[in-house]
Amino acid sequence: MTQLNLKTHSKNSKLRLKAWLKILKTSNYIEKIIRENLREKHQTTLPRFDVMSALYRSNKGLTMNEISKLLKVSNGNITGIIDRLVDDGLVLRVTLKGDRRSNLINLTKKGLILFEEYAWSHETWINEILKKLSHKDAQVLSNLLRKISD
Amino acid sequence: MTQLNLKTHSKNSKLRLKAWLKILKTSNYIEKIIRENLREKHQTTLPRFDVMSALYRSNKGLTMNEISKLLKVSNGNITGIIDRLVDDGLVLRVTLKGDRRSNLINLTKKGLILFEEYAWSHETWINEILKKLSHKDAQVLSNLLRKISD
Repeated sequence: MTQLNLKTHSKNSKLRLKAWLKILKTSNYIEKIIRENLREKHQTTLPRFDVMSALYRSNKGLTMNEISKLLKVSNGNITGIIDRLVDDGLVLRVTLKGDRRSNLINLTKKGLILFEEYAWSHETWINEILKKLSHKDAQVLSNLLRKISD
Repeated sequence: MTQLNLKTHSKNSKLRLKAWLKILKTSNYIEKIIRENLREKHQTTLPRFDVMSALYRSNKGLTMNEISKLLKVSNGNITGIIDRLVDDGLVLRVTLKGDRRSNLINLTKKGLILFEEYAWSHETWINEILKKLSHKDAQVLSNLLRKISD
């Protein structure tokens, strides 16, 4: 196909576009492996892992709205995930005093222990996937990315 | 919540995990802006942009299966996008000789011109989002990411 290319951007712009395409490719590549590993090695899903991770990092538990905002996923999707986690005895819903509409969601002891297994595996997988990055490389990479999204 | 942390990973592993979380955050951050800009400034969607982009980069057009594989999206989803692009006069389906089941899909002249507008905007937005990255920064970033996913 003939490409028209009537206008051109600067060389810097091309390098930044290339960097973005590389960020996207790498992100998709790693996410795919994590998704597969969670399924194969822990019989769980990435959204479920993400919800448990958000609860683990919270101090007092989270409301549905907070989980939904943190994960940028609709309340409806989160409800289904929480229902299953409750059925599996991994999270508990606690009704907040004075506000019957709003439940605080927290990991149970069983959920806490299971999530720490997931988190351990997750860090092991990432360490393996990023093994070609030295100590210094990983720091430089984080700092460059911080220039973009901070 | 008491965190158990019974086991620990190496310091390198923590830095790699941090780098991965930064890659993910940056990727989501940029994708969100692109999605919003495509909607607001070109009244289009990211999946539609991605399909047109794949067609633009192909030489002879693509089959549905090829588009589906390239974008890692199911054939069903691609069909809906292609149907709309055909309705809008932006792509054409051509039946391959000897294989009536398989259509080759290509951009029309109108689609080609429109996609070049999108691509120009896209590069402009990325250049703006990544403006804090120097020429050298962008190269270093691409090279570090290449160590992971190549």
